[in-house]
Amino acid sequence: MSTSATNDREEGLAFQPKFDASGLLTCVATDAASGDVLMVAHMNAEALARTIETGEAWYYSRSRRALWRKGESSGHVQRVLELRIDCDQDAVWIKVEQAGAGACHTGRRSCFYRAVPLGRAPDASLTLGFVEAERAFDPAKVYRKTD
Amino acid sequence: MSTSATNDREEGLAFQPKFDASGLLTCVATDAASGDVLMVAHMNAEALARTIETGEAWYYSRSRRALWRKGESSGHVQRVLELRIDCDQDAVWIKVEQAGAGACHTGRRSCFYRAVPLGRAPDASLTLGFVEAERAFDPAKVYRKTD
Repeated sequence: MSTSATNDREEGLAFQPKFDASGLLTCVATDAASGDVLMVAHMNAEALARTIETGEAWYYSRSRRALWRKGESSGHVQRVLELRIDCDQDAVWIKVEQAGAGACHTGRRSCFYRAVPLGRAPDASLTLGFVEAERAFDPAKVYRKTD
Repeated sequence: MSTSATNDREEGLAFQPKFDASGLLTCVATDAASGDVLMVAHMNAEALARTIETGEAWYYSRSRRALWRKGESSGHVQRVLELRIDCDQDAVWIKVEQAGAGACHTGRRSCFYRAVPLGRAPDASLTLGFVEAERAFDPAKVYRKTD
């Protein structure tokens, strides 16, 4: 890309989302109240457009290869209070009000429920520590069986 | 992947980072003080290992195809206070103390300095709004010329 195109994308006010080779960009959802990162997921052009239009988070599931309205199965929808785009327009950050008990399919509030200890090189003995071990909801009850 | 392997990765305490086909995972860096998302970048296995060992953020630059110690050129290093990994271990969240005036190469504190207005379908007339227009530092002065 030319320098002027890069400068325009970074300094201009034109919306020029940059999707990767798979047609996706990265989305970080944070809890508007606590500031915690709830999840990192992906959006294709349609998910991004629907999120902007509806003010509710839509994603694209790479594993299911399908557009995905967050909370469609669980009821744990995310109301988007603010959507920001980064310098090179290949990532967005949404601040959300998380409905229900949590964002993670495992039943936790956040997908980031384990911490990695710092200060020495990771090896086979490295053990994660739970930050949020208890489930906020029972995923077996919340998610309907789908194929 | 088998269900038991998935369950182990999600519920176990073994560190099993899942790198993509390019050998990368996604890293979200937030400001430990403000909670703001500063940047979204990528780590390869070596960047992740160095971050864990040193407690300073290392990334992998896809454009430069090189390991990258954050702040190497600018002095704007990131001290990592906490590193968390997500449910399927393909993304990490670091809470950092950002040295210097900011994290973004454009001179802002955060890469997410523009917001997308919500409530109607994005079209050619959609215009971003600056959340943080002013530069916190002058990138021309901070970054040495490199090839």
